[in-house]
Amino acid sequence: MAVLKLYTEVLESGLELYFIKSDSMQRLRPRESEPDFKALGNALRLNALSMIKAAGSGHIGSSFSAVDLMLACRIFLPENPENIFFSSKGHDAPGLYAVMNSFGEIPDSSLLNLRRMEGLPGHPEVGSFGIPTSTGSLGMGISKAKGFWYSRKNLTSTVAVLLGDGELQEGQIWESLPGGSRDKMAGLIAIVDGNKIQSDTWVDKTLPLGDLRKRVEGSGWLYLDCDGHDYSSLQKTFSRASSENTKPVFIYANTTKGSGVTFMESFDVDGKFYKFHSGSPSDEDYMSAVHELLEKLQISPTPSSLNAHISISQKSYSRSEDFIPKKRNQSLIQIWAEILEELFEEDKSLVALDADLSYDTGTYKVAERFRSQYIQCGIAEQDMVSVAGTLALSGNIPLVHSFASFLTTRAAEQIFNNLSECSKVVYCGFLAGILPSAPGHSHQAVSDFGIISSLPNIEIFEPACETEMSLMKSLIYESDKSIYLRVGSVDLPEKVDLEMVRLGRMTQRKFGEKFAILTSGPSMTKIALEVAIDSDDLDIAVFTYPTPGRSLTEEDASLLASFQKVLVLENHLPSQGMYSHLLERFQSSGSIVKLIRSGISELPKNGQTKEVLKYHGMDAQSLAEVLRN
Amino acid sequence: MAVLKLYTEVLESGLELYFIKSDSMQRLRPRESEPDFKALGNALRLNALSMIKAAGSGHIGSSFSAVDLMLACRIFLPENPENIFFSSKGHDAPGLYAVMNSFGEIPDSSLLNLRRMEGLPGHPEVGSFGIPTSTGSLGMGISKAKGFWYSRKNLTSTVAVLLGDGELQEGQIWESLPGGSRDKMAGLIAIVDGNKIQSDTWVDKTLPLGDLRKRVEGSGWLYLDCDGHDYSSLQKTFSRASSENTKPVFIYANTTKGSGVTFMESFDVDGKFYKFHSGSPSDEDYMSAVHELLEKLQISPTPSSLNAHISISQKSYSRSEDFIPKKRNQSLIQIWAEILEELFEEDKSLVALDADLSYDTGTYKVAERFRSQYIQCGIAEQDMVSVAGTLALSGNIPLVHSFASFLTTRAAEQIFNNLSECSKVVYCGFLAGILPSAPGHSHQAVSDFGIISSLPNIEIFEPACETEMSLMKSLIYESDKSIYLRVGSVDLPEKVDLEMVRLGRMTQRKFGEKFAILTSGPSMTKIALEVAIDSDDLDIAVFTYPTPGRSLTEEDASLLASFQKVLVLENHLPSQGMYSHLLERFQSSGSIVKLIRSGISELPKNGQTKEVLKYHGMDAQSLAEVLRN
Repeated sequence: MAVLKLYTEVLESGLELYFIKSDSMQRLRPRESEPDFKALGNALRLNALSMIKAAGSGHIGSSFSAVDLMLACRIFLPENPENIFFSSKGHDAPGLYAVMNSFGEIPDSSLLNLRRMEGLPGHPEVGSFGIPTSTGSLGMGISKAKGFWYSRKNLTSTVAVLLGDGELQEGQIWESLPGGSRDKMAGLIAIVDGNKIQSDTWVDKTLPLGDLRKRVEGSGWLYLDCDGHDYSSLQKTFSRASSENTKPVFIYANTTKGSGVTFMESFDVDGKFYKFHSGSPSDEDYMSAVHELLEKLQISPTPSSLNAHISISQKSYSRSEDFIPKKRNQSLIQIWAEILEELFEEDKSLVALDADLSYDTGTYKVAERFRSQYIQCGIAEQDMVSVAGTLALSGNIPLVHSFASFLTTRAAEQIFNNLSECSKVVYCGFLAGILPSAPGHSHQAVSDFGIISSLPNIEIFEPACETEMSLMKSLIYESDKSIYLRVGSVDLPEKVDLEMVRLGRMTQRKFGEKFAILTSGPSMTKIALEVAIDSDDLDIAVFTYPTPGRSLTEEDASLLASFQKVLVLENHLPSQGMYSHLLERFQSSGSIVKLIRSGISELPKNGQTKEVLKYHGMDAQSLAEVLRN
Repeated sequence: MAVLKLYTEVLESGLELYFIKSDSMQRLRPRESEPDFKALGNALRLNALSMIKAAGSGHIGSSFSAVDLMLACRIFLPENPENIFFSSKGHDAPGLYAVMNSFGEIPDSSLLNLRRMEGLPGHPEVGSFGIPTSTGSLGMGISKAKGFWYSRKNLTSTVAVLLGDGELQEGQIWESLPGGSRDKMAGLIAIVDGNKIQSDTWVDKTLPLGDLRKRVEGSGWLYLDCDGHDYSSLQKTFSRASSENTKPVFIYANTTKGSGVTFMESFDVDGKFYKFHSGSPSDEDYMSAVHELLEKLQISPTPSSLNAHISISQKSYSRSEDFIPKKRNQSLIQIWAEILEELFEEDKSLVALDADLSYDTGTYKVAERFRSQYIQCGIAEQDMVSVAGTLALSGNIPLVHSFASFLTTRAAEQIFNNLSECSKVVYCGFLAGILPSAPGHSHQAVSDFGIISSLPNIEIFEPACETEMSLMKSLIYESDKSIYLRVGSVDLPEKVDLEMVRLGRMTQRKFGEKFAILTSGPSMTKIALEVAIDSDDLDIAVFTYPTPGRSLTEEDASLLASFQKVLVLENHLPSQGMYSHLLERFQSSGSIVKLIRSGISELPKNGQTKEVLKYHGMDAQSLAEVLRN
């Protein structure tokens, strides 16, 4: 076996990160040697782990379960310069980049730039180091592979796509199969990373996949399964797949989430949450994992700096730990979870529906305490929304939960259909707006506002803080329309007193007399307050308006008209929102106030918060300049 | 057998329509007697046919194949006041209303009001005579049934939903199955009207369904099949279905599209188009079908008026007739078909993708002449859009076709994903806008404009006439963005000369000096011209603007600023369009022109064109009044 070369990078915090050099990995012969295959897998895991630690976020479990499959696609499929491989599940991006780096396609220096602007995108993006297509929103993979298959010039080339097992809950997967068999897509291979754990918990506890073989064979595909970490099983299966010449092939690979690091493989069946799905590991977890991987790689001598760290990683991991990421306690997610609990305590007609994001949307308390009023729909947003529609027609108030970007686009027609029935459904879209910008385009909901505001019979509620969020308790009963609760899941400005907020009115968060900033949602409010406080000379008043789809009251509009300039800060692409309503209002009243819109005006950049906001002119400094000029 | 009573209604054209009276049908005993079951089926077909003839549009084939199944749900499932039945395929609405009428739930007098405002909706709508949920956009049925199932108070009641076989191509169907088995939804029965013909042609020629039994059983459902027109087969199958107590049930019923009328059952396998999918029958076809149904019902004496008509219906039907509905020759569909032909003649990188609407979107010529550049995707819009995405990344220019309402909502996330890749795809959405208003909400695309204008990297092109449409020939090459071709499929104003149109500029269609109307698309342009011509005293100029998402040029904006009032007539819900851009422009230039928006501002009404336009203030008279006041 070639000697794997270790190198380190030091984070600002002083923590050393451990990587294996690309050139040393390129000397391994994983195609011929099982030990080299194993070693390469673990070296890739080390690099992926360190990338995630450097980025501060990312998906360890899915990267670790997938790397052997990615290697198999490289080495066990017939070589052809036109082969195409891409991942549809997207969460495994660090694993993918590590693999590409090990083949010399991404330089070592880029590994520290995961999730940074112009660095390595949080989910794979087309164009970045030759990645063939952007992924991230689940379920599109087989369709995309078909498009590549139709476009093949070299008919002996392979199009391989990697799917998640949770991803198989998406209807588009099943919609895309029949066309593959009709058109006899030999050479198209879909591989499922069957790690059996999705975002919240086990696939089988979320929404079982049934008899996959029957479902896939019934759609006319060749179905194969294998051990996704075993050299000879992978070799045999991929060889069979590539010899198939009449059908597309579907491989279910049995894998282990977090494979390679013992404590990351652990999952307590009685526990509720797999700890290493998303997020950066703690320093202790990181060092402990490095320790195990280096041991497996038999890399010695262990760097001295590592030994010093090992001592801190000796704690034992409590497997039944009811883990809720701490940052979420500081956000509107936690506050929504509490409001839900309060509401469900009182009202048996409420039903919470969830698409495998209970910890990211705050439904986990309902799931625990009000079991009969909770439906886990799996990663199946269209189904969820249509189920909610008839629940509403039957006298319930359904509250549908997902990320804003998925809910409003994947299920737009189902939402429209429900709205045409004039029933009341509460659509709760989290991670709304340009932030967090690290996961990438599929997660940046900047069109959700416009989409919802283009639909009839629904109004948008976008709270900035705990107090504004509390208005939802009455809004869901008082509104005669459906509601889109637009939740920015990052940042949380200081809450205002309850007497300062009133449904349908602006909340004044800072006094000022010359200029005004009007905005909605937590992150933009924090920025607006930052502008106002930093630029004392501009004498800026800050208002938030949690019902941005409604015209302002006469009183609020007059108040705004008393400023020299009003800057409307919108966390979405231009659409029918506060700015356009105010423009119409000021035009008809002949107001001479200068009205300015700041916000996103193009496909957003992704990367770290500061660099992205600055790029779009949405950071405090840029906004102050806009007001000043 | 009870005597079925015939009555007639006379159309404005003088044609007599034949119906069977509800009270006479209620005396049949279809539960116990096979002859009564058969008779009732044919009586229902007669009524459905006459309703469609009266409405001027509707779906005969699907109504005829479905009525026996609807009857079976009524009579072979255990009676329970809380049973719920609805149709997810929607096209069978006339059949459904006929069944409801035969059970006394809809009065005879309503049968003449199909597809009229406040009458019987073109697709089933919640609230109309107790219909439990609105249907029409395919694929939502099982999800909706699940919502009802969760809401059951009486746990012995049945929730039955009727699906189309073409509908099984939609991913949501397959997405919705696993939750049904996980939650052991005994009492939920999905019935497929397996008539084997979808909108354009055979299901098997469009996108085969594969081994349905395997696919369904693999998802954990009980699978049954039966002869969907046979009394004892239906009785036996529905009895087995209702005795199942651990699983939801999926029944595939073999049926015949157009069942009951010999020449409507006919379908030439070499032909391209089933003639009785949609649309009202000709007088001859109508009379001939009535003749056969009355014969089967042994109704005599044949009314004298009928005998007089029979003579006109003796022509033989040419089975290989290459049928293209005539009205389409007068619309932008036909013009688009010709442009496609011209483009495909020259450019081998173009690929047309279609979702079973080749005659409604104009791809049929490409399908015939450029087979290798055409992909029939079936009723699978999400798959189609994602396939197009990677075709584009591979160097093709894909042109994706469907109805505007389906394409922009069902596949919104897939469109966004493609846009985030900055590739170029042409999305062609037909039946855009409030018209035709007869099919109902699912087909009225009034949110599509707002949805698309909320997305990045795409521009809207909405031609009013043949000449403006011809600009597409250059736009698809010149634009650096994706394009949404928004096509109003009804009406066609006179075309202007080629030198009058320029990309990015307004087209002036009528001169005037006092007021101006600015609009896009064929139907609104026809109305605008009607206003201008009818209200000569108002001295109205009419402009169309086929790139309504772009800001006007300085020159065009100045021209508009020279009028006293500018009325912007928009065929969609308020969104970032001509009005909002013009508002911003006028505000920043300090213009004193009065700017007025007319258009849809709520969930549109459905019914006949005139009544719907009047309701929304979009008819010529209302618009003239707006300008006058």
